[in-house]
This record gives sequence, C-alpha cells and structure tokens, in this order.
Amino acid sequence: MPKIRLTVAYNQPPDADAFLEHYEDVHTALARTIPGVETFEWSKVVGTATGEPPRYALLAQLTFESMEAFGAGLASPEGQAAAADVASFATNGAEMFISELAES
Amino acid sequence: MPKIRLTVAYNQPPDADAFLEHYEDVHTALARTIPGVETFEWSKVVGTATGEPPRYALLAQLTFESMEAFGAGLASPEGQAAAADVASFATNGAEMFISELAES
Repeated sequence: MPKIRLTVAYNQPPDADAFLEHYEDVHTALARTIPGVETFEWSKVVGTATGEPPRYALLAQLTFESMEAFGAGLASPEGQAAAADVASFATNGAEMFISELAES
Repeated sequence: MPKIRLTVAYNQPPDADAFLEHYEDVHTALARTIPGVETFEWSKVVGTATGEPPRYALLAQLTFESMEAFGAGLASPEGQAAAADVASFATNGAEMFISELAES
C-alpha cells in the first residue's frame, strides 16, 4: 500500500507578503496538527525552469501512511480547520493533488 | 541559505501506461544520477481534493543543497540527459517549479 501525499499548490496571491506571513505564522501550525500527517514540508516558489512567471506561489506537501489515514486526517476537526484557513487566506485559491508516493 | 527544490509536474500524457512505464524504467535512473541531488521523490497523481480531473499525472521533486548546486546539477551532462529525456517522453510537457525549501 503506497503512502499518500497531498500536494497543495497555492496560486499567486494578490498580496504576496501578507500571504506568506499568514502561511508561516498561522497555517503551518494548523497543518502540522492534522492527525496522521507523517511529514509536512513547504517551499516558496521562486521561479520556473523556463523563466516564465510561476503559476504557483507556494507548494506544500503532507504525507500520510495510507489513503484511509489521509481521509481520516482531512475529515478531522484539525483537517477541517486547516481547510477553512486555506479558504480564508488563499484568496486566489489553491490546487490540491492527491498522489501515491513511489517507494523508490 | 535555503535548500532548493525542483518540482517537476508532468501534464497528463496521451498514453498514461506508456508514460508511467518509461518514467519508472528509464527516467528515475537518469534523475538520480544528476550531481548534487540530495533527495529524489516522485508520486503518481490519483486525484484532486475537489474531484476534478488532475492537471498533472505525476509529480517529482529533486532537492539540492543550494541554488549553486542546483544550477551545476542541471548544467551537468547528467542533468542535460535527464532534461532531454523529459522532452522526449513527456509529449504533453511538464512544468518545473524552482522553490526554496522551508526549514520547518
């Protein structure tokens, strides 16, 4: 059974500084409390390989032991709080990709 | 100095099975040989949080010690071989995001 990864790709926000401040000061703490999160990483997008402006401002990823653990984590009060926070501060939206992590 | 992550987001290919087979059998080995790659992970996208079809079929990430190491790795013969392979098998293209990995 592969581990499940949730990748959250945040669209470029209208106010990059305010977005990043909220992300670091508020959202990372919420994401870490989601039950079943084995690893949490995030990175600030600074460019693309082609030099074109990047579609996303920030990439985050949460890894869970299984699809069941992922579902339970997202449905938990902590998962719902994190999702509600995204809806409030990521005013230009975010894309969320669910993927199966390869073992090697 | 933050670590640098290259995220390669592969658009949905015309032939998903052939794409995945080439990725696993050929491309992962090329990616791993790029000088300076500290970690390499990839995952197969199986859905989105909204239930809409995912924009990408596969997400890969390579992490480097620094922007300098990233540049040197991509410019190396191994980096160029991996890039040429992407151009050949990812017929619907891929987006590549360069990001600064947060320490926590």
